[in-house]
Amino acid sequence: MVIVMKPGAPQEIIEKIEKKMISLGCEVHMVQGASYCVLGLIGDTNKINQGQIEANDYVEKVLRVQHPFKLASRLFHPENTVVQVDGVKIGDGNVTIMAGPCSVESEEQLMTTAFAVQREGAHILRGGAFKPRTSPYSFQGMGEEGLKILRKAKEATGMPIVTEVMCQDTFDIVEEYADILQIGARNMQNFPLLKRAGKSQRPILLKRGLSATIEELLMSAEYIMAEGNHNVILCERGVRTFETYTRNTFDVSAVPVIKELSHLPIVTDPSHATGKWSMVDPLAKASVAAGADGLIIEVHHQPEVALCDGAQSLKPEKFARLMRGIEKLVAIR
Amino acid sequence: MVIVMKPGAPQEIIEKIEKKMISLGCEVHMVQGASYCVLGLIGDTNKINQGQIEANDYVEKVLRVQHPFKLASRLFHPENTVVQVDGVKIGDGNVTIMAGPCSVESEEQLMTTAFAVQREGAHILRGGAFKPRTSPYSFQGMGEEGLKILRKAKEATGMPIVTEVMCQDTFDIVEEYADILQIGARNMQNFPLLKRAGKSQRPILLKRGLSATIEELLMSAEYIMAEGNHNVILCERGVRTFETYTRNTFDVSAVPVIKELSHLPIVTDPSHATGKWSMVDPLAKASVAAGADGLIIEVHHQPEVALCDGAQSLKPEKFARLMRGIEKLVAIR
Amino acid sequence: MVIVMKPGAPQEIIEKIEKKMISLGCEVHMVQGASYCVLGLIGDTNKINQGQIEANDYVEKVLRVQHPFKLASRLFHPENTVVQVDGVKIGDGNVTIMAGPCSVESEEQLMTTAFAVQREGAHILRGGAFKPRTSPYSFQGMGEEGLKILRKAKEATGMPIVTEVMCQDTFDIVEEYADILQIGARNMQNFPLLKRAGKSQRPILLKRGLSATIEELLMSAEYIMAEGNHNVILCERGVRTFETYTRNTFDVSAVPVIKELSHLPIVTDPSHATGKWSMVDPLAKASVAAGADGLIIEVHHQPEVALCDGAQSLKPEKFARLMRGIEKLVAIR
Amino acid sequence: MVIVMKPGAPQEIIEKIEKKMISLGCEVHMVQGASYCVLGLIGDTNKINQGQIEANDYVEKVLRVQHPFKLASRLFHPENTVVQVDGVKIGDGNVTIMAGPCSVESEEQLMTTAFAVQREGAHILRGGAFKPRTSPYSFQGMGEEGLKILRKAKEATGMPIVTEVMCQDTFDIVEEYADILQIGARNMQNFPLLKRAGKSQRPILLKRGLSATIEELLMSAEYIMAEGNHNVILCERGVRTFETYTRNTFDVSAVPVIKELSHLPIVTDPSHATGKWSMVDPLAKASVAAGADGLIIEVHHQPEVALCDGAQSLKPEKFARLMRGIEKLVAIR
Repeated sequence: MVIVMKPGAPQEIIEKIEKKMISLGCEVHMVQGASYCVLGLIGDTNKINQGQIEANDYVEKVLRVQHPFKLASRLFHPENTVVQVDGVKIGDGNVTIMAGPCSVESEEQLMTTAFAVQREGAHILRGGAFKPRTSPYSFQGMGEEGLKILRKAKEATGMPIVTEVMCQDTFDIVEEYADILQIGARNMQNFPLLKRAGKSQRPILLKRGLSATIEELLMSAEYIMAEGNHNVILCERGVRTFETYTRNTFDVSAVPVIKELSHLPIVTDPSHATGKWSMVDPLAKASVAAGADGLIIEVHHQPEVALCDGAQSLKPEKFARLMRGIEKLVAIR
Repeated sequence: MVIVMKPGAPQEIIEKIEKKMISLGCEVHMVQGASYCVLGLIGDTNKINQGQIEANDYVEKVLRVQHPFKLASRLFHPENTVVQVDGVKIGDGNVTIMAGPCSVESEEQLMTTAFAVQREGAHILRGGAFKPRTSPYSFQGMGEEGLKILRKAKEATGMPIVTEVMCQDTFDIVEEYADILQIGARNMQNFPLLKRAGKSQRPILLKRGLSATIEELLMSAEYIMAEGNHNVILCERGVRTFETYTRNTFDVSAVPVIKELSHLPIVTDPSHATGKWSMVDPLAKASVAAGADGLIIEVHHQPEVALCDGAQSLKPEKFARLMRGIEKLVAIR
Repeated sequence: MVIVMKPGAPQEIIEKIEKKMISLGCEVHMVQGASYCVLGLIGDTNKINQGQIEANDYVEKVLRVQHPFKLASRLFHPENTVVQVDGVKIGDGNVTIMAGPCSVESEEQLMTTAFAVQREGAHILRGGAFKPRTSPYSFQGMGEEGLKILRKAKEATGMPIVTEVMCQDTFDIVEEYADILQIGARNMQNFPLLKRAGKSQRPILLKRGLSATIEELLMSAEYIMAEGNHNVILCERGVRTFETYTRNTFDVSAVPVIKELSHLPIVTDPSHATGKWSMVDPLAKASVAAGADGLIIEVHHQPEVALCDGAQSLKPEKFARLMRGIEKLVAIR
Repeated sequence: MVIVMKPGAPQEIIEKIEKKMISLGCEVHMVQGASYCVLGLIGDTNKINQGQIEANDYVEKVLRVQHPFKLASRLFHPENTVVQVDGVKIGDGNVTIMAGPCSVESEEQLMTTAFAVQREGAHILRGGAFKPRTSPYSFQGMGEEGLKILRKAKEATGMPIVTEVMCQDTFDIVEEYADILQIGARNMQNFPLLKRAGKSQRPILLKRGLSATIEELLMSAEYIMAEGNHNVILCERGVRTFETYTRNTFDVSAVPVIKELSHLPIVTDPSHATGKWSMVDPLAKASVAAGADGLIIEVHHQPEVALCDGAQSLKPEKFARLMRGIEKLVAIR
């Protein structure tokens, strides 16, 4: 950590801060330039409250040298984490495909789609039972009934299930039915939910928030890991920008950045990133070419009657075409 | 709602969509241009699932004419909502001041600050007991003990209390102690929390999310109101942009925009918006000049030892100076 | 174009606007809903001044149905444009590689890099002679001397040259030496420069502005095309967001979006998008997988002594590895 | 400047960088932490090419301590700069009002508006003769004829003129007619134009780019000042964000931030910031309350027939009301 003092900061204030930092267990190196005095701190600076230092009238700014995450950091854990669920691996160098409808709408709908995606090579079945919706007047998901249908689909196909958990109140029940628990973009900094997820035995699929930096995503993973659950899968699903043609701006750079900073697997969700089915194929391929460990793809046998996010769902035949393209890419990776 | 068909969309598809819309209770007006065929819908289009329409291969886009919120809309409720708590009004044309420390840290700290802000004219005491923090290693708040100290401060000063509620699990207890319940920026789209807030008898102070549009903020208010709680106070606290000198970019336009679109009171939080105490005074004044119904100001008697957000806290003497400036502004509004 | 009137707009105002639109050559369809009256316009709405309509106190908003670009639009020009220069094609389904240093620094530097990139399969040599720099104190490029060195490199290698043109004053001279003229991100809406480019016989490589929407990029292409030059190559090079780990956020979606909206070729610049050499390889591959027509890659034989943007330059051996990866991707596209 | 080495960087590389920095005239302080080695540099680091250092495979990142601008910095020039033109001062503690139509459309239009704004207390007349427009098919301004009309309005009213200069080619002619030369947001980083402006005797009104940081705005001012012209007036006119209700997001914080960082006057343009006339009044007041040195306000006697930006123009009677509000605010500032 580096503390930059304002030009003209009195010597006694600088010394006061120096002493305070030493008392917190840091070694302090003072460097006096022409205009600025700079204090370089060595030691466990994670304990230091940056805001307290910045509150000083004579402090210009505080620069961090180290990333604030540890358990999620590749620096302290160089080998890739491989998450396993029912024999399916995520993060082992292959591309794991999670596919299915946005929402579970009926047994017939889910079964039709589940068999369709399995036939084309999907490894994990996705489907929402509890749905976060911008409007209180939109379909909010089938709830526990949806979870039961997901369980049936798992029994019929053998595919493990990933589904969203929205709150502490329904955590236990979702945990009972699902194999991987998804925490959605809007909940990425729902800290009580993250803590609860950290106590779960299930792997957590953590989606990046709409305006979360990659560092904040890794800090949210850190919340889960700090409670003991190290099976965290990260997911890039687009961030919010000024561009309006796509629903979000898909940040494909997040894939190599996360590979650099962390040992956790990173998958992408091109369906939510763009909100347009015609963009799913090129962005899925871009993700795989950039090194993603997996993809989450929305598939619906009749998108035009889907109760949620039909605009971004692939029909099974388009999904089949995408899978053939992905296979070719994986072969040359 | 306006449906724009792709150029060259087959007549039978257009008619199919037309019939579907009529079956949903809409009147449909077809307008055929040189390249585009456009369908104008009349009726309660809130029931229509926009994604289903956009899922059609021949639909170019869907444009909404009406805002999706109703209970929060000034269109259906032209008079200003005035929220009252313990005799303090918010939204009645005056500027209501909520002030206090970011976090409750001790009885002595809160009492000192509480008396200081009251002396300078604050109406409501703020202070966090449950704190959302980006890092799991940061101070997370005193919890129920903090609530008890807030209660004592209320008894000593007579000022009502506003404090954050972070999750369903601790909702009941926060509701028991606090007069106004704050839902923080990161929870603006925590829909189960919003629904629970909608069942509360307490007014809700709802903060705008870091990358939430004003429409989304109003949709989150709609969630609360749809459950029966119409006492919602909105709060602008800065949005996330590319600018790094301030922590967030304070969107002062949100004040007049919300006045135009909604009847709910709108207050601002210049402390969180910038993260710098030196910016609080000018932005507070800008808010009042733009028509804000109130301000939330962080005050700490010793910011340099604050456990949270010290960098943005005003010392009591700076708060006093700010209050004198606000009073002059209110006098000429 | 759709005009949405405010609820309660007087009938006479609506009729006044209707008449005005008819007088401008439009057919007007009025649709009266419960709260809103909507006017649907048919005809050449490009002539209509949207701001004039919105200036009316009773107009809520104006929605556009059609994109505002025509010459750049795939709707009116369904086949792909293929730009040709010295036998090299851009937009014909292959991936055209433009590579070289950020800036021309000396004859030795350019020649070394030129031969290196040619050996690995690059088609076009890039190199800046006039450099736009954020600071007036940074190296501003070698100017005409740099152009002469580029010319020598072309003579030695046979590769055509792409280089930036920064202003009208130096347009003629850059045009004399270069084969493709690049207009940089900061000049994307330098309209006099675009008009001048439209009068050139040289193909123009137009980079997307830091915060330009895709529609605005296409409107800038329209400026060039409207003056008669239809050889425009578009370039995605990252947009500005809140994320700070990468210099910009690379919007890979721009590739398929532009393929959908326009017939012009689209290439990407992963070097400038991220500002980090370690990100160039994955983002270049992502671009190709998403359908890009070409890549611009910064290569420097000694990045640590580069006068400009060394942090994002590949060494020749890393460029060679990237080229092998790209070739495999092209083979399966 | 602080260089952070990657964990595990070899000692010889660290020493090589150290020597290089010493050879560039810096004093280097090495601080070795548990994971990171950090080099603190003292001396004139503006000469150091940050990219060259970052190009090193073992460098994690480079942190800057000092702002990169000097002439524009308050640190080296503590007193406020006051710009004077024809007896009108900008930056002397008062609020200078620049008002007039977006574009000059005819002598009658300009004269009507000029007398109207003067009557209400405006100090400077604004009006565009050369107009940057997103579409090549929009009205591009009257050019020199417009300048002549502006000159007539000046002769009739005595008010100095501010008008936009778009390029080098027309610089001389605009300079001949105008008193203050405006450089628009899209040209904020048109460096040849900035250099030309730096050679002018006229004050320059420099608008912040749509996605420019405040630091970049000050660096653009530095370009002008480095050429000898120190009469630069900065202008906040909204930045681009995800919010769509307003055209841009007006960053009122820019006012106090610039007051802190620079000695140059800062004015705001609430008309362009929002694109909506109903927002101009509250945002103008917010600007003044936050400490702005002036305002640029679009006024048109018939906005519904304005050839440009009618939606954001105030009618004279609304401008009069705004002026009365501003006067009250100025009185208590």
